[in-house]
Amino acid sequence: MWAGQTLTKLPTPAFTVDVKVVQRNAQRMIDRFQALGVQLRPHMKTHKTLECGEIMTAGTRRCIVVSTLAEARFYADSGFDDILYAYPLPFDKVEECAALAERLEAFHVLVDSQEALQQLRQRKLANSKRWLVWLKVDCENGRAGVKHTDPGALELAKEIARQEETELAGVYAHCGNTYSCSGQQAIEVVAQSTTTSILQFASQLEKAGVKCPRTSIGSTPSCSHPVPDMGKLTEVHPGNYIFYDAQQMMIGSCKMEDIAVRVLTRVIGHYPHRNELLVDCGWTGISLHSLGKLPSGYAIIEGHPDLKLVGMTQEHGRIQPISGELDFSKFPLGSLLSLIPYHSCATAAMHPVYYIHSDGKIVGTWTPTRGW
Amino acid sequence: MWAGQTLTKLPTPAFTVDVKVVQRNAQRMIDRFQALGVQLRPHMKTHKTLECGEIMTAGTRRCIVVSTLAEARFYADSGFDDILYAYPLPFDKVEECAALAERLEAFHVLVDSQEALQQLRQRKLANSKRWLVWLKVDCENGRAGVKHTDPGALELAKEIARQEETELAGVYAHCGNTYSCSGQQAIEVVAQSTTTSILQFASQLEKAGVKCPRTSIGSTPSCSHPVPDMGKLTEVHPGNYIFYDAQQMMIGSCKMEDIAVRVLTRVIGHYPHRNELLVDCGWTGISLHSLGKLPSGYAIIEGHPDLKLVGMTQEHGRIQPISGELDFSKFPLGSLLSLIPYHSCATAAMHPVYYIHSDGKIVGTWTPTRGW
Repeated sequence: MWAGQTLTKLPTPAFTVDVKVVQRNAQRMIDRFQALGVQLRPHMKTHKTLECGEIMTAGTRRCIVVSTLAEARFYADSGFDDILYAYPLPFDKVEECAALAERLEAFHVLVDSQEALQQLRQRKLANSKRWLVWLKVDCENGRAGVKHTDPGALELAKEIARQEETELAGVYAHCGNTYSCSGQQAIEVVAQSTTTSILQFASQLEKAGVKCPRTSIGSTPSCSHPVPDMGKLTEVHPGNYIFYDAQQMMIGSCKMEDIAVRVLTRVIGHYPHRNELLVDCGWTGISLHSLGKLPSGYAIIEGHPDLKLVGMTQEHGRIQPISGELDFSKFPLGSLLSLIPYHSCATAAMHPVYYIHSDGKIVGTWTPTRGW
Repeated sequence: MWAGQTLTKLPTPAFTVDVKVVQRNAQRMIDRFQALGVQLRPHMKTHKTLECGEIMTAGTRRCIVVSTLAEARFYADSGFDDILYAYPLPFDKVEECAALAERLEAFHVLVDSQEALQQLRQRKLANSKRWLVWLKVDCENGRAGVKHTDPGALELAKEIARQEETELAGVYAHCGNTYSCSGQQAIEVVAQSTTTSILQFASQLEKAGVKCPRTSIGSTPSCSHPVPDMGKLTEVHPGNYIFYDAQQMMIGSCKMEDIAVRVLTRVIGHYPHRNELLVDCGWTGISLHSLGKLPSGYAIIEGHPDLKLVGMTQEHGRIQPISGELDFSKFPLGSLLSLIPYHSCATAAMHPVYYIHSDGKIVGTWTPTRGW
């Protein structure tokens, strides 16, 4: 219905994706890790669409990571395979995981506790198939995972490898601590430390005679600036890089021109008595994720470094100049503004449809999956 | 599929709604304004479901407010009528508004500028129907609306009433400034001030010979504790009261037992080395709206005043004790916790389906509309 029209025709707020930037971001990540001889297993959590999954896997529809079972089902239903559900095994979802494991060539799960391993062992797969189990290792990120220095980590890996019902598919670490970095050098320090930890852990496994075919680390900052030692991993699993965002630009993962997504919004009110204009994008359109901490507030207002998105309610955004008086004649009621999201995963999650364009011409729409 | 099962069977994270509490909240608001002789025009923006719209209108499916055109279409398509699209007229949506105005018995729009009025006049309705236009007045809330003290407000009202294509359906004020109140007395001060302002404005209109059949103010805090003068209004338009939430409890609008919604979540990780457990509810499950400012962090953890939801990522929530050591044996992996949202509008917006229960037994599911 929208194909062929210009972006300026869209009803707002609208989440737009520049498909050429998406393709370039995808290709660069593919090339970067091909050069290092490392398998890229892209994460789907940022966009949750089939089309973007296709682009990130260069059309193979193989070798992806997901964060929810809803994504796993969605991709499996559309012919994707070799899917890693990279989430501490939720005990209420073991049966559904088993169905996917029995149905797909390779459906991988992830554990970080003996209890989770027991859950898997209690649900034997049909046809003597074995659960493909990754051990989640925490290399100083401090979210899920057994600490890499904890002797229990090695024990658990051995257990997974030893049991009849399971096989150790790999070890997995998320270096989310790169998100507190500023600049390439800081990112590389975390990337190096995580890589070293995971490679040391794999080498301990090898010494203990435990076969572990895969080692993987991920995060968009680390994979945008890989350190040479990452070439010794078998896999990486970044996700956000497909869209990037203002946060990644501030971390140092990307440049402004790499950010593929925008929220288009229109001016709906002029309030000179408080030097403010109102736009039709509230937190349902862009999320509160920047916490207002950007110099420009809750988003970057493209082409207007003098403006600040100072606050939002459900469907309203309030924009003020960073200093001085607003020239309202430059922003007539009904005119468009383009917001660059702080956190594209969070902004995408608010939109039931994405409008895809190439050079400002709409080429189609993508529909993400939602829920769990 | 879920009817008859207990809540504890649900896959998590799950947004649950206690239908008895919803019905009680709805009935109390109906009774409260029936006693005052004021028409209740409930706002749909919090839940965006047909079922809840039915309950809030006591089955009449008449006289509602919506915040998006998607809601307007959704309710109109299901036999609702007398719908007020209480949003500063977006110029890209005039044609769709016209279609609704031509099709429904009463589709009301809202303006706060001469430019918006011109947009309406340029799109004449079929069959000499007139646009039903509300004037949005800003009574010190500071979002949309012409300031009640601005002579332009009276001028605009006169213009709407005078034009052939439009009729002045009412004057509308949102007292969102009640959200910064603490306690009933503070709420009543704002409710009184907004009511006084809107009634004075209406009396100025009357003196000027301008017919204005409706006066409406709204916000859940003010309508939960109406001041007697609100009986002189013709309408009120609260919305959040149907669910309430931790924020409303802190403002003083409701008590804990009035909060109808929860997010159920399961424990997915134990990390004693950092005195923390992980749950399967991240910001996609509950939103970041409390900004972590509650004593219990991003939500209230029901029945566990000693716990704090200290942080979230997309699909993970981190819980720590407020003080002391966590007794992990009380929270085995897979066990359920119940989170009371800080802002139910924001939490509901993250869920593609709501699970409805009565005394812990699931009685059905509701599916909200999304988008714009």
